[in-house]
Amino acid sequence: MKPKHTFLHCLVLLSTMYTATILAQTELASWSDSQAKNRLMEYVSTVTTKGSSFVDTEQRVAVFDNDGTLWAEQPIYFQLVFAMDRLKAMQSQHPEWKTEEPFKSALAGDVKSALSSHENLAKLIFASHAGMSQVEFKQAVKEWITTAKHPTTGRKYTEMVYQPMLEVLDYLRANGFKTYIVSGGGIDFMRVWAEEVYGIPPEQVIGSSVEKTFTFNQDGSAQITRQSELNFNNDKEGKPVAIDAHIGRRPLIAFGNSDGDLAMMQYTMAGSGKRLAVYIHHTDKEREWAYDRDSHIGSLDKGLDYATEHKDDGWIIVDMKKDWKVVFSE
Amino acid sequence: MKPKHTFLHCLVLLSTMYTATILAQTELASWSDSQAKNRLMEYVSTVTTKGSSFVDTEQRVAVFDNDGTLWAEQPIYFQLVFAMDRLKAMQSQHPEWKTEEPFKSALAGDVKSALSSHENLAKLIFASHAGMSQVEFKQAVKEWITTAKHPTTGRKYTEMVYQPMLEVLDYLRANGFKTYIVSGGGIDFMRVWAEEVYGIPPEQVIGSSVEKTFTFNQDGSAQITRQSELNFNNDKEGKPVAIDAHIGRRPLIAFGNSDGDLAMMQYTMAGSGKRLAVYIHHTDKEREWAYDRDSHIGSLDKGLDYATEHKDDGWIIVDMKKDWKVVFSE
Ligand SMILES: [Ca+2]
Ligand SMILES: [Ca+2]
Repeated sequence: MKPKHTFLHCLVLLSTMYTATILAQTELASWSDSQAKNRLMEYVSTVTTKGSSFVDTEQRVAVFDNDGTLWAEQPIYFQLVFAMDRLKAMQSQHPEWKTEEPFKSALAGDVKSALSSHENLAKLIFASHAGMSQVEFKQAVKEWITTAKHPTTGRKYTEMVYQPMLEVLDYLRANGFKTYIVSGGGIDFMRVWAEEVYGIPPEQVIGSSVEKTFTFNQDGSAQITRQSELNFNNDKEGKPVAIDAHIGRRPLIAFGNSDGDLAMMQYTMAGSGKRLAVYIHHTDKEREWAYDRDSHIGSLDKGLDYATEHKDDGWIIVDMKKDWKVVFSE
Repeated sequence: MKPKHTFLHCLVLLSTMYTATILAQTELASWSDSQAKNRLMEYVSTVTTKGSSFVDTEQRVAVFDNDGTLWAEQPIYFQLVFAMDRLKAMQSQHPEWKTEEPFKSALAGDVKSALSSHENLAKLIFASHAGMSQVEFKQAVKEWITTAKHPTTGRKYTEMVYQPMLEVLDYLRANGFKTYIVSGGGIDFMRVWAEEVYGIPPEQVIGSSVEKTFTFNQDGSAQITRQSELNFNNDKEGKPVAIDAHIGRRPLIAFGNSDGDLAMMQYTMAGSGKRLAVYIHHTDKEREWAYDRDSHIGSLDKGLDYATEHKDDGWIIVDMKKDWKVVFSE
């Protein structure tokens, strides 16, 4: 970039900031004027205002779980729907799946049987997510995410993201935070659409992954191939380890919705200075789903107790029903 | 950040940019006015000027090997010196090392015997790099890097960085590039000092790593512990895989100095559009070291042939002796 461009760029930036000033009045517009919202805004104000709790911009890291935190996860994780749909798209090349389990059940739409064991789940995931190049896989995700519809709402999956959380992402970025996804979901599945939907670039998306290998061909082409082996399961105690590996800094703020996020949130809160851990509690069976301790997906049990016990120490439990004026983006 | 701060911040930025305009005249000042420098600057101009080869800022990724590319690596990788020094610091707690190999040789300063096999190397690395918390390890690196001196030059290791490469890092960042380290060295070893020395923040440092585990304690403290097991060896075909995992974008420019960088450079060049692969060739035995094909460290053999064959297709070989006016930063 030439100096002239840089100068112009900053002028553009300045005018954008005037607009931001106006927008700031309506930031977190989908949040009720509740304790949850006020505590979040108070916290952000504290660490961004010069004083004893001020934190430099480069240290302002906020991490977000994805399923059940940034977008919905019922009746099953959306990535599993992708896996099922992908198997259907691949079945003509795999006649053996007609008789072989768990593929037979998966193709028949019998999700319960198909996912009846960890072993079955692994088979379905690897069959749909591995044995192809990164380029092919990302193309398949891209096609699916732009066309597939949720079974009960009929919305596209990218329209099942939570409007109040999009506002939190914008709000934190406007306050100098770098926003990261730290999800049990697949890193490459999310990276395809996270930038467009959440404004989170690939290098700030952390997730589970399969092993990959690199091949260089004599014609000058090169390929990264996805292998049928788990590389990293980004859940529970894996989350703080992945944060350390990818970011190398402890977050200031962590958002989650299940016991799978508890370790990441405790890691965040164990840092020095003021930090924030926010649980999204699914309490709204009319506008979304209501579930916690006994849910087969996104179970929030130990985390709910821990957050309740520590709510005077920076832990917030967001009550979706009361704290959110709107759930999904329009 | 409040709007007022943001506005002021941008004014400060503008004045910084005026300074940058003046500095731009002396950018890459330590580079001879040679083909290598001119081709690099031509390339950057091409992808940052509106036109058919223009590349958006978010796609401007440049990756740099570290040992032998950003700082020196002779007579042995500096991190190995750290390992040896660390063993010496730890020896009082390990009386068994007095008789047990490879520790006995390492403590006696007999580097050749200590490093005589991969098995020995692994033992020394794990003993010095694992079995402690991340916090303790980083503290040990910090103390070492601020005090240790290179055996032949007497300089601190952070003064063994290449001035022309610091200028390349600044130059690329001034042109909207995000600069990453992609090194066979330890990710946590480098992250301690890379921000201060290279201006590269932790989240843009990719390296080899040991396995880690997370523990949360009842008193609210939390710890990431380094285990005596290799997690990832970031060398050769591992480098493109790690780039994909951490960045999720293919680089536009890759800098390396050995065959260990060839896969990363070929991966870079296999992308669409114009890209650049730059080998630093150690040709200056007066000011630094001269080595390539037969070196026990940083061997450049296949890579040298490949780059020579493809020098009309975006591959550059930097001749340290001819292309650099200055080697080390003052
Ligand atoms: Ca979740
Ligand atoms: Ca090297």
